[in-house]
Amino acid sequence: MVKKMERLKKLSIVTFVLLIALVSPALAVTSDQNAASIEEIKTTLTFMWLLLASGLVFFMHAGFSLVETGLTRSKNTANILMKNFMTVVLGILVYWAVGWGIMYGADAAGLLGTNQFFLAGADNATWNSWFFQMVFAATGATIVSGAMAERTNFKAYLVYCVMMVAVIYPIYGHWVWSGADMALLSGADSPIVKAIGVASHDFAGSGVVHSIGGYSALAGVILVGARIGRFKNGKPVPIPGHNLTITFLGTLILALGWLGFNGGSTLNANDPYMNLVVVNTFLAAAVGALTVMIITWVKTGKPDPSLTANGLLGGLVAVTAPCGSISNWAALVIGLVAGIIIYVGVMFNENKLKLDDPVGAIAVHGYCGSWGLISVGLFSIGMGNGILADATYAAAVPGLFYGGGISLLLIQLVSVLVTMVWGFGISYIIFKILDAVIGLRVSEEEEIMGLDISEHGIRAYPEYLMREE
Amino acid sequence: MVKKMERLKKLSIVTFVLLIALVSPALAVTSDQNAASIEEIKTTLTFMWLLLASGLVFFMHAGFSLVETGLTRSKNTANILMKNFMTVVLGILVYWAVGWGIMYGADAAGLLGTNQFFLAGADNATWNSWFFQMVFAATGATIVSGAMAERTNFKAYLVYCVMMVAVIYPIYGHWVWSGADMALLSGADSPIVKAIGVASHDFAGSGVVHSIGGYSALAGVILVGARIGRFKNGKPVPIPGHNLTITFLGTLILALGWLGFNGGSTLNANDPYMNLVVVNTFLAAAVGALTVMIITWVKTGKPDPSLTANGLLGGLVAVTAPCGSISNWAALVIGLVAGIIIYVGVMFNENKLKLDDPVGAIAVHGYCGSWGLISVGLFSIGMGNGILADATYAAAVPGLFYGGGISLLLIQLVSVLVTMVWGFGISYIIFKILDAVIGLRVSEEEEIMGLDISEHGIRAYPEYLMREE
Amino acid sequence: MVKKMERLKKLSIVTFVLLIALVSPALAVTSDQNAASIEEIKTTLTFMWLLLASGLVFFMHAGFSLVETGLTRSKNTANILMKNFMTVVLGILVYWAVGWGIMYGADAAGLLGTNQFFLAGADNATWNSWFFQMVFAATGATIVSGAMAERTNFKAYLVYCVMMVAVIYPIYGHWVWSGADMALLSGADSPIVKAIGVASHDFAGSGVVHSIGGYSALAGVILVGARIGRFKNGKPVPIPGHNLTITFLGTLILALGWLGFNGGSTLNANDPYMNLVVVNTFLAAAVGALTVMIITWVKTGKPDPSLTANGLLGGLVAVTAPCGSISNWAALVIGLVAGIIIYVGVMFNENKLKLDDPVGAIAVHGYCGSWGLISVGLFSIGMGNGILADATYAAAVPGLFYGGGISLLLIQLVSVLVTMVWGFGISYIIFKILDAVIGLRVSEEEEIMGLDISEHGIRAYPEYLMREE
Repeated sequence: MVKKMERLKKLSIVTFVLLIALVSPALAVTSDQNAASIEEIKTTLTFMWLLLASGLVFFMHAGFSLVETGLTRSKNTANILMKNFMTVVLGILVYWAVGWGIMYGADAAGLLGTNQFFLAGADNATWNSWFFQMVFAATGATIVSGAMAERTNFKAYLVYCVMMVAVIYPIYGHWVWSGADMALLSGADSPIVKAIGVASHDFAGSGVVHSIGGYSALAGVILVGARIGRFKNGKPVPIPGHNLTITFLGTLILALGWLGFNGGSTLNANDPYMNLVVVNTFLAAAVGALTVMIITWVKTGKPDPSLTANGLLGGLVAVTAPCGSISNWAALVIGLVAGIIIYVGVMFNENKLKLDDPVGAIAVHGYCGSWGLISVGLFSIGMGNGILADATYAAAVPGLFYGGGISLLLIQLVSVLVTMVWGFGISYIIFKILDAVIGLRVSEEEEIMGLDISEHGIRAYPEYLMREE
Repeated sequence: MVKKMERLKKLSIVTFVLLIALVSPALAVTSDQNAASIEEIKTTLTFMWLLLASGLVFFMHAGFSLVETGLTRSKNTANILMKNFMTVVLGILVYWAVGWGIMYGADAAGLLGTNQFFLAGADNATWNSWFFQMVFAATGATIVSGAMAERTNFKAYLVYCVMMVAVIYPIYGHWVWSGADMALLSGADSPIVKAIGVASHDFAGSGVVHSIGGYSALAGVILVGARIGRFKNGKPVPIPGHNLTITFLGTLILALGWLGFNGGSTLNANDPYMNLVVVNTFLAAAVGALTVMIITWVKTGKPDPSLTANGLLGGLVAVTAPCGSISNWAALVIGLVAGIIIYVGVMFNENKLKLDDPVGAIAVHGYCGSWGLISVGLFSIGMGNGILADATYAAAVPGLFYGGGISLLLIQLVSVLVTMVWGFGISYIIFKILDAVIGLRVSEEEEIMGLDISEHGIRAYPEYLMREE
Repeated sequence: MVKKMERLKKLSIVTFVLLIALVSPALAVTSDQNAASIEEIKTTLTFMWLLLASGLVFFMHAGFSLVETGLTRSKNTANILMKNFMTVVLGILVYWAVGWGIMYGADAAGLLGTNQFFLAGADNATWNSWFFQMVFAATGATIVSGAMAERTNFKAYLVYCVMMVAVIYPIYGHWVWSGADMALLSGADSPIVKAIGVASHDFAGSGVVHSIGGYSALAGVILVGARIGRFKNGKPVPIPGHNLTITFLGTLILALGWLGFNGGSTLNANDPYMNLVVVNTFLAAAVGALTVMIITWVKTGKPDPSLTANGLLGGLVAVTAPCGSISNWAALVIGLVAGIIIYVGVMFNENKLKLDDPVGAIAVHGYCGSWGLISVGLFSIGMGNGILADATYAAAVPGLFYGGGISLLLIQLVSVLVTMVWGFGISYIIFKILDAVIGLRVSEEEEIMGLDISEHGIRAYPEYLMREE
């Protein structure tokens, strides 16, 4: 008995010791450590994904620069390259000093952020987020740059660019993306959101980036006026760009960049529905291009290359808001409509509004951006439903065509209205002031000479003989 | 005694409770959860790797476009840009609607897939795979586009492009990459594989992508005929391209893209031998270029830039099949032979076959693609052997030079034959039909005028004064 | 009692069995397996990060090529494209055969590595590291190529390029990055390090890559002499480049590449402070560009595009050494000073030293590289301090402005001296030998004709009418 007791005792002790030895100090800790390591890895994945996505979006600035350069005349090339280059340069500095704080700093009344200027107190996660947001921030200014190309004063543009990155873009961005409870268009405590009952959704910025850029461009184009010779007796006279090769290279760079633009906007590498996001993005892009090619072919008997390239961009801009909330089929419809908007919009701007927008920025970014916002209200599947079961960052409720009623459509329409009023309005005021203080437009003599000589004292292609000479 | 018993009992109970408390509900579950999280992370890694690799391959379309544009005359630039652009656009839509289903849908008799059209029922993993496969799919058409540049009817090319992405490429792809038991060249139950005893291996598509493209291009070049002035009294007259800068930019973009093309073809980010894949890829590329430079230097007294660039591409094409199955040294030999093939092949096509292939596509993609397939049968190390111990996706058995006998070489030679018969044959038929229905070639007048004016009504560089004028 | 004993015994046995069943074979192993899987994933993350970062750095060769091509005359374009292309090609082969072994092979006396030639015995980790290091290796030669453009013998350059990748770059690299105990500038047992008490720090190569390239370029520029017509009666005459568009495209590609250049230099994807590295990189770049734009605007009345682009590059080069060891504010100061150095350096080289450096390589890479090394000694925060708590690869001790005294500054100054002596000295000797054996400079006739015709027998843009004709 005692012996048995002893054996039993020993067994118990051995068991206990084994438990302590294996479970407590080694296992228990290890499993917790593993869980902690797993969380770290998930963070690492997001860091890596967003840094690389940021690289792709950064590269879009090369794309914008090439598209704008290619679609304009060689005498303004150095100026356009410099403008787009300084847009990135100022974008980095101004978004670091001011823009990020206005967009993501502590909320004041749902209207703007009020701290984190100069990235004060930043840690690795902040730097990572900032870098991704920064490469978006200068995009709005680039859009305006394209629409006002070949006649705008360089200094005035630079000041405008600073205002765009410091104020115009981040304030609207705050209303949609800040996550603040009061955020005007998306916070649960915003009076607008309360009234309509659902938050505005703009996944990667059809509105935040593109519409704001596009309607700001509209203000700029109206105020700066058309290039000399662009309209004769009220009829548009085409001014062909000087290099279609770089226009197409730029367009393909932009399409590549959109992989980061939309794919990165999950803001989380561990979100598997980034695959759906990317597929929808490229489906809409392709349909947009195809649609415009067919329209121009039917209308003129020949497929037009630069409009077709804009069709791709229109599809990309439009799908930017809905791409994480919709089916493949919806992406195709959205791209199709975007293609139609590009053709109709460019023609309308040129023939009816008599606007001179050398790159078609108002149609591509303004109109298609608005269509993107609206399409969320129509095609959103709603989270937790079927294919979006995984999604952590999609439109929460279904749109009109998916049985969600008109609430989502309504808030999206409000967002469209706000992008127009804010983007056009604030840019109009700023351009008016710049016109009074600096002068928005170069002189007639400078414009005819070309901005490369007048603004920079150089020629972009000094060796080539040009037709105009 | 009882006290002791009580203590013993307590000890046992405490032990048991500890076990239940620590091990079962907390630890056991946590460890399983960790394992599940780890699997999720591995999937995330693959998603990220393939999305980024896809981006690199997508960017190759810019590379192909620049190489083709640079190696041809300025009067056809807009047409070439548009062709390559629409190749991507149609590639996206057609591979979504049809191509993927034919390639990876449920197998019918080892010949083609029969469902998953329009990506019906896709989930995140499918979207991820589709995106990577899609960026490959349009490459075959791009190759054909280059070889037939400067004289092919735009509409006929578009229809051909649809056929390539919908049928030509995915059917051959099904035979090699579908994983179906009956898959003609790779399935265990295929009569060919049974007869030879080993499956065909084509890691990233020397055959599937490049040979099919190259031999399809051969059919097209034969049927469309040489450009006006390309041969005079049976002697070739060089028609220099208009912009070497963009040719080289395009070549470097293609080399960059091959990082994704081959690196991504592990189809699994967790496969560490992607590092070997990438190193082999760049070694073969470098030797290919160096070889051609030396040959042209010796033959003509001067190193030829555009042939040297093609030497790099030849090395890349050749190493695409074997890169995951061979040593660094084999990669060097494969690149060296590819360089020789480029020089000899281009000269043979031009001087003996009197073929007019403005970009050298038939030699680069056709001949070097075949050499790549053959090289697997010679240099494959075999899985589980030494450095390929990690590999999950390499040629299973050793090649001739590694003691594996001739079985692998034999099935690779069969694959070469099949790419020739299928690629050349089906494309020949399709082009014949297109010629009858639409007309494969533009009129002599249009060709002389240039396709930019005749097909699109614009000029790519309207400001520049050109020598021909 | 016995019953109780039995129950107790059963309880103990059940407990023990449960322990064995749940803990040992299942749990214990699983948790260890998880930990092993986690380590594998961390390795996978690094593999992926470095492959992608390598891709970005590889793409920089396209950037260098475009910048150099754009800033020079069209008659030398094919030659420049070919030079830069062959630099990559030779870089791959030579760094595989020799360079890596010299840089990272088993140390001999702290001076150079002595094995691992031809990557003998490489495994996946080695291939991964090699690929990342390889894309850096050819950069030094590219820098020299730019400075000596438009008059250097092609064959002599190729031989020099081999020497750079085989010997010049890897030997200096060994002194700083090999990790050998005796490594001249960084090993704990190096007499220099012992004397000063702290190791030299050069995060991503302000010294290793850029200064060595820059001072080698200085030797080349002195020996090859200025281009015909570059100085008239001792006064500099500008020779404008032929294509500013590709210069700017190249600059943006370089900036993109720096994301991989600096970001990848953590050499570990799991190091979260790569986010700080990237943010500092782009802040310094932006300030560098802005500074030069303002200086040129003030000095000449017009903002100069190509100098401004060089300002961005100067900021990037300078921040390359310190980017992982400093605050955002320090990055801004470093970029500001780099911008000043660019302007002053380019003017000094041109007006005082009468050097003909078509791309500004000596100022950008030489001078700003040195400033980068020095700035570490001034602005280093020191590891474990505040924001660098996470860092695993930063300067260990604080710099002068952060209370660390002058030790770090001293060893950095020594490094600057060594880059000058080694880079300039060894390149001077090699160029002298090449001049004697092959001839460093083309003939006057060839130079006037252009190297495209004389070295390669072709024209880069055969259709365009040029002003000179």
